[in-house]
Amino acid sequence: MNAHAPPNAPRYRTLDMPGILAFLSGLPDLAARLGGTRAQWTIREVSDGNLNNVFVVDGPRGGVCVKQSLPHVRVDPSWKMPLDRTFFEASYLRDIHPLVPGLTTRCLHFDPDLFVLVVESLAGHAVYRTALMSGVDWPRVVPDIATFVARATFGTSVLSEPFERVFDRHAVYARNQTLQRITLDLVLDDPYHDHPRNHWDDVRLDDVVGRIRTSPAVRRAVDALRLRFLTCPQALLHGDLHTGSIMATATDTRVIDGEFAIYGPIGFDCGMFVGNLVLRRFADFSPDAGRRCVAEIARFWDTFVAEFTRLWAAAHPTPSATSGPCAFFVPDADGASPGRTAFVRAVFDDMVGYCAMEIIRRIIGYAHTADFDVIPTHDARTERRRAALSFACGLLDAHGTQGDVEAAFGALVREDVKGF
Amino acid sequence: MNAHAPPNAPRYRTLDMPGILAFLSGLPDLAARLGGTRAQWTIREVSDGNLNNVFVVDGPRGGVCVKQSLPHVRVDPSWKMPLDRTFFEASYLRDIHPLVPGLTTRCLHFDPDLFVLVVESLAGHAVYRTALMSGVDWPRVVPDIATFVARATFGTSVLSEPFERVFDRHAVYARNQTLQRITLDLVLDDPYHDHPRNHWDDVRLDDVVGRIRTSPAVRRAVDALRLRFLTCPQALLHGDLHTGSIMATATDTRVIDGEFAIYGPIGFDCGMFVGNLVLRRFADFSPDAGRRCVAEIARFWDTFVAEFTRLWAAAHPTPSATSGPCAFFVPDADGASPGRTAFVRAVFDDMVGYCAMEIIRRIIGYAHTADFDVIPTHDARTERRRAALSFACGLLDAHGTQGDVEAAFGALVREDVKGF
Repeated sequence: MNAHAPPNAPRYRTLDMPGILAFLSGLPDLAARLGGTRAQWTIREVSDGNLNNVFVVDGPRGGVCVKQSLPHVRVDPSWKMPLDRTFFEASYLRDIHPLVPGLTTRCLHFDPDLFVLVVESLAGHAVYRTALMSGVDWPRVVPDIATFVARATFGTSVLSEPFERVFDRHAVYARNQTLQRITLDLVLDDPYHDHPRNHWDDVRLDDVVGRIRTSPAVRRAVDALRLRFLTCPQALLHGDLHTGSIMATATDTRVIDGEFAIYGPIGFDCGMFVGNLVLRRFADFSPDAGRRCVAEIARFWDTFVAEFTRLWAAAHPTPSATSGPCAFFVPDADGASPGRTAFVRAVFDDMVGYCAMEIIRRIIGYAHTADFDVIPTHDARTERRRAALSFACGLLDAHGTQGDVEAAFGALVREDVKGF
Repeated sequence: MNAHAPPNAPRYRTLDMPGILAFLSGLPDLAARLGGTRAQWTIREVSDGNLNNVFVVDGPRGGVCVKQSLPHVRVDPSWKMPLDRTFFEASYLRDIHPLVPGLTTRCLHFDPDLFVLVVESLAGHAVYRTALMSGVDWPRVVPDIATFVARATFGTSVLSEPFERVFDRHAVYARNQTLQRITLDLVLDDPYHDHPRNHWDDVRLDDVVGRIRTSPAVRRAVDALRLRFLTCPQALLHGDLHTGSIMATATDTRVIDGEFAIYGPIGFDCGMFVGNLVLRRFADFSPDAGRRCVAEIARFWDTFVAEFTRLWAAAHPTPSATSGPCAFFVPDADGASPGRTAFVRAVFDDMVGYCAMEIIRRIIGYAHTADFDVIPTHDARTERRRAALSFACGLLDAHGTQGDVEAAFGALVREDVKGF
């Protein structure tokens, strides 16, 4: 019936635009959400990421977003890939939406044969990376993302749930291996040795790449962060929380594209987001870009810590020495909890480390970002990339010794002095 | 057909001794291993642990050991329990036997309907705890267990295998929740607050129990170790590696009873074993028991580190700055690997912490050990238990600051001076 269907998904076929409309018209709840009749619906392709087909369908009453996995990477049909990534994205949305209802989109439907995921449409929202490149200043986004990470991770961890629920969920995402392999290879591994997937377009980056690869301290930090990614399942992560996985307006922030969801260290989500703020800073020539970036990172971290700590205190309020089972790090009588402090500090160290690894892979690895495209000349782009790589190298060289945002990221302000 | 079968195991029935023989006679490979005819086979029950029925069957040619899960705890039929524990034990044996072929038993057969596991019989072996209580000195056991832990954990970790295989296996053992709940509650939680499962038979232990429960440093260490047990899946653990899970002779050591298998911190297996050596020491009145115990712990730790490090070096030999993908902590040119050192140090800290928690739960928790039964008077038993609890409390009070076996366990020698 369908010669192109993978063996383990015999009913799969890639839907074209008329196929999407027919699919939706067969689902009464979704048809009702669109309103009117199928003839009144409009559809447009908005595929933006590397992996999937994405369409927005609008009707007289409302809109939906339809995402379908392809049996290959969208931008490289020779790179074969299993279809299950929309399954993991649907699972992620179902797991975290109750925790962060206003900060992501609701899963409206998932078809396990066609690997089609339907979510709320975000009319009027822009991809945050694109918005940043156009120069917007939307102060809600950074604290919203901090709140998102705090709630989605705390709520899926053993700090808030019986371990049985966490282990059940963990077992599901442990099968999300195709995309974890991508993260492991492209983000955490390839950039640190010769690999044909790496690329950069100017030999003037070679020396800093060499410095990153030969520094014993950097290698040790990279190995430790790679091992932690695989063996530190603190909570359910988004797993790909860069500025292109965020849709925003000046007043509303939504996290999308959760197909990389995995149990891992909380600082991975923090670090990937912050790393993209830093990438943005190095492409920004406005005179106080560094100061603003450090302030944003501080706001992100302070908001995350406040929310995570608030949730923790609410879950385990009893300041008693014999307060019952499975309360972790209940504060002492004086209100202090060195255990919580150590936990949060480890998240900070992870954030700093994964931030640096995100910067590095976005400049010399497989998947670059568009941030530097706004820089007008090749020389200036190379210069800013060199500066970003040097900064990231420094973060890893001193990894674990930076105690706070100022110590880790303060150098970004000093970049302002150089007159960019 | 079988009114007592659990709903999810309709073919299950508890086999009596004739039933076991009939079962084996239906399996040609096992019948051939026993030799002769069914009429020539002998069977005896050897159930020793708390959970399962265990039988040894001997024939003219050889013997097998048959273990069947019951739908309840063997020693407490009112404590209902799912049958799947023999499934996890069979899985564990299949996963680790290739890594430690001479140090455990081979899984010969597993029946997923009856939850019957058949393994090699260990003729002539004694339960190591019982042997220790009778005063044997078998110097092979301690280094054998160290080798067992090193090989079984390294070989099931991402240090030696692609993460995909590790995640697949992890997902299986993440379902072993009934027994993890027991570990979490009975070993890591109950003893640290009031719970009806706790018990000790002398009010003269109350003060040291109070000290354990009210020390902020102890509570912080306990919370951290409990959280690590749930969120630090370094490798596949045995999960219940006390001296009753070891069968030995003077020259042969076998680890049995892997039904608690789970991904967790490697130091958990180390600590449970060492904790039982320490329990034994406090029940031993011979004049140099302390010195011998510290020497045994040092031999365990040194053997573990040597074997784990040897495996690590063999898996990732290249001392190059760009040595390729997913080599963790390859040594620098001078042979040093601070990353490996830090990893092993964390295992040490875990070993010390879980050792202390094993001692404590064996004296004031649900499942005590027989070690102290050899002490003739009630007063002396109480005195030795007090001393063991105080020692364990000290280990947790200083947790993370002891740098080596001497610093952590040296106080055991000083107990000799007190004249026990």
